[in-house]
Amino acid sequence: MSLDFFFYPKSVAVFGSFKKGAIAYEILRNIVEGGFEGKIIPVNPKGGRVEVAGRTFRIREKLEEPVDTAIIAIPAKFVPSLIDEIGPLIRGAVVISAGFSEVGNEELEREMVEKAKKHGVRVIGPNCAGIFGVHGKFFGSFEVRVNPGGLALISQSGAFGGAALAMGNDEGIGFSAFVSYGNASDLNESDFLEYFADDENTKAIALYIEGVKEGRRFLKALRYASERKPVIILKAGKSESGAKAAASHTGSLAGSYEIYRAAFKQAGAIEVEEMEELFDAAKAFEMYPRAGKRIAVITNSGGPGVLATDKLEKLGLEIAKLSDETVKELRSFLPPQCSTRNPVDLIADADYERYKRTIEVVCKDENVDALLVICVPPIFIPSEEIAKAVIEAKCDKPVVVNFMAGELVRGGVKLLEENGIKNFPTPERAAKALRWLALRG
Amino acid sequence: MSLDFFFYPKSVAVFGSFKKGAIAYEILRNIVEGGFEGKIIPVNPKGGRVEVAGRTFRIREKLEEPVDTAIIAIPAKFVPSLIDEIGPLIRGAVVISAGFSEVGNEELEREMVEKAKKHGVRVIGPNCAGIFGVHGKFFGSFEVRVNPGGLALISQSGAFGGAALAMGNDEGIGFSAFVSYGNASDLNESDFLEYFADDENTKAIALYIEGVKEGRRFLKALRYASERKPVIILKAGKSESGAKAAASHTGSLAGSYEIYRAAFKQAGAIEVEEMEELFDAAKAFEMYPRAGKRIAVITNSGGPGVLATDKLEKLGLEIAKLSDETVKELRSFLPPQCSTRNPVDLIADADYERYKRTIEVVCKDENVDALLVICVPPIFIPSEEIAKAVIEAKCDKPVVVNFMAGELVRGGVKLLEENGIKNFPTPERAAKALRWLALRG
Repeated sequence: MSLDFFFYPKSVAVFGSFKKGAIAYEILRNIVEGGFEGKIIPVNPKGGRVEVAGRTFRIREKLEEPVDTAIIAIPAKFVPSLIDEIGPLIRGAVVISAGFSEVGNEELEREMVEKAKKHGVRVIGPNCAGIFGVHGKFFGSFEVRVNPGGLALISQSGAFGGAALAMGNDEGIGFSAFVSYGNASDLNESDFLEYFADDENTKAIALYIEGVKEGRRFLKALRYASERKPVIILKAGKSESGAKAAASHTGSLAGSYEIYRAAFKQAGAIEVEEMEELFDAAKAFEMYPRAGKRIAVITNSGGPGVLATDKLEKLGLEIAKLSDETVKELRSFLPPQCSTRNPVDLIADADYERYKRTIEVVCKDENVDALLVICVPPIFIPSEEIAKAVIEAKCDKPVVVNFMAGELVRGGVKLLEENGIKNFPTPERAAKALRWLALRG
Repeated sequence: MSLDFFFYPKSVAVFGSFKKGAIAYEILRNIVEGGFEGKIIPVNPKGGRVEVAGRTFRIREKLEEPVDTAIIAIPAKFVPSLIDEIGPLIRGAVVISAGFSEVGNEELEREMVEKAKKHGVRVIGPNCAGIFGVHGKFFGSFEVRVNPGGLALISQSGAFGGAALAMGNDEGIGFSAFVSYGNASDLNESDFLEYFADDENTKAIALYIEGVKEGRRFLKALRYASERKPVIILKAGKSESGAKAAASHTGSLAGSYEIYRAAFKQAGAIEVEEMEELFDAAKAFEMYPRAGKRIAVITNSGGPGVLATDKLEKLGLEIAKLSDETVKELRSFLPPQCSTRNPVDLIADADYERYKRTIEVVCKDENVDALLVICVPPIFIPSEEIAKAVIEAKCDKPVVVNFMAGELVRGGVKLLEENGIKNFPTPERAAKALRWLALRG
């Protein structure tokens, strides 16, 4: 089923209060500031005008023309009748409003869904933070806007979603879409998995769930999506206390974690343990769909090279044995103090040429599936120079990069990011990224 | 043994080239820009002048007056005779120069140490990145300067040290000292452990090692230090390939990791697995010496609260059972939608008053040893307001904070840091911080 009318809408209506700071106002502001090029219609029975980002909108007293999507942030009790009223004019409704099943008002939620069904309207929410269709410049949520890219983020928790988007911005993640689906009264995680599996702007899917409603359907949707692109899952409510907390939070039964874990694995999804790992995996999969497990480490500093090697081996990856030919070729141009074993240690004064040539030589070694390139720039070599070497080296295998740290590498990391290469801030996080790539290798 | 002449020197001489970009120049620049208040003497046989940070120094042709510490960055082969010459005038020498045992020149290193011993001079290095005594405003290294605080960082690897200092700046760590000890020709990790164990500005010690030279002495020093303050250890060269790489890098035999691991545990040190964990542990111990294991989680967002709970339980901590009295008191002022179980969910619109009062009520519960406070600010509540609640809440138990994320909490995190409260960027990292505190609890 296509949900394009949600994620690539041509027109949108927003229902609620347009006083500054109110939810509907903030969503309208995000849509306008985000550069949405379709029709935008604010609706409130009181009418009036609202100014947003230098533009003035007339607030309609009611919706009188068809739109793809309605975003609804009015008190819960009025939602079913509104949907009944505008049903003939809309294809999808994103219900931000809280006060439904999550606080015991199951009946109100059922009524809302019935009205929607009557008109063939699909519903996201209620009790959700909204949606982004980033490539359509549609930011239908009050959460912070993000840069376009390959990650579709599906979050059961609105707050998790909001935090994740802001964190994604800091981590240099690019997003294709975001959906916070709240109570999942109609559309749920399975629908979104299926949709993003076929969305051409989405390279990887990240899913935060506490529990799912339809186990079998979820497994099927997860398998469908995982066959097409990497699906990264962070499951909350794994521990006894966590499961209880999740039950009181989303009302969903978290169920036995062991069952979930087995299902994720069976479906070919990538389960991560921590929020940070969700992003590291997403960064890796935004760059590469997969990688083999024989890794070559190239470094200008021994210690970090050893840390990477330790972690790679611990994670079950292999420290590639470089061929005699590769070693010989490296020996031909590297200073004698450099180590031509794997990890290849280019020592502190490694410059553009030494990095570039080494990456190219190691890359064509048949024993090597992927490269981990580490750089701790010494004071006399700017990080930009080494970034340039990584960018310009001819290599058709996955290259995962760890430049350290902070102000020492700010310039180099920026240059890498501008060229689509995401930096992992520690050797261990870079090693983990390679492991996730290898899980699909 | 006091090493105050290294870390709180009254006077220092720097030997090497004072051309811009040269190692000795960069060290001189760091010392001057860092605000060192003692005497600073640049020395080079060619004499001349050097301008640094608006000050002009006359370069002495030789050292003719006593100084506490000499920092030496001249070609390796001249180091032994220089030390013999200036031995009577100095107490300590920091030998930056490389080209000693790490490249097979054991004899030259032995000669250097003999000359030093003859004059009762102690040596740090050679082949090292230098030292910082941060509270004495002494930045005797070319690495990036850091803020004063409680962490003493001891690093066998210079590059690791440099990366760690820059990362520490980004993570809001305060440092008491830094020492990169390179080949450990004279002073080694054990000496520094003993010294910082008794240094009153040091609250916690972080140690990066690949291998140690004197196993028994190390164990004794580690126990001595661990009895006095937290010692956090990151051991590199744990895997087979990692150990081989370490051997070729520092020349130290990494030895069996199992033996190290047992030794760390026996001595009461905190072993971490990853570079990032080293900092998270350091952040925790800069704030608190220890904590019990019964944790109360307070959050305004369900999802992140569940993630924290999962991680705490997985790490063997306890989700504290709040007393009936606490629950009753919380019920008296919290809105009915809030959860008064642990995790305590204050829901999205939690403001200053709700956070502050909840922290205070939970803090005085006898079943609670420490608090984990999570905040994902909704658009209508600035993160500064919640930061203020955390700062102003009266609580005499450890409070570990996770504000998320990025731009959403920039202001609040800044305010927290100005008040000595370090933020952990994810619920899981905050949970791990509590575990390290509990390991000494």
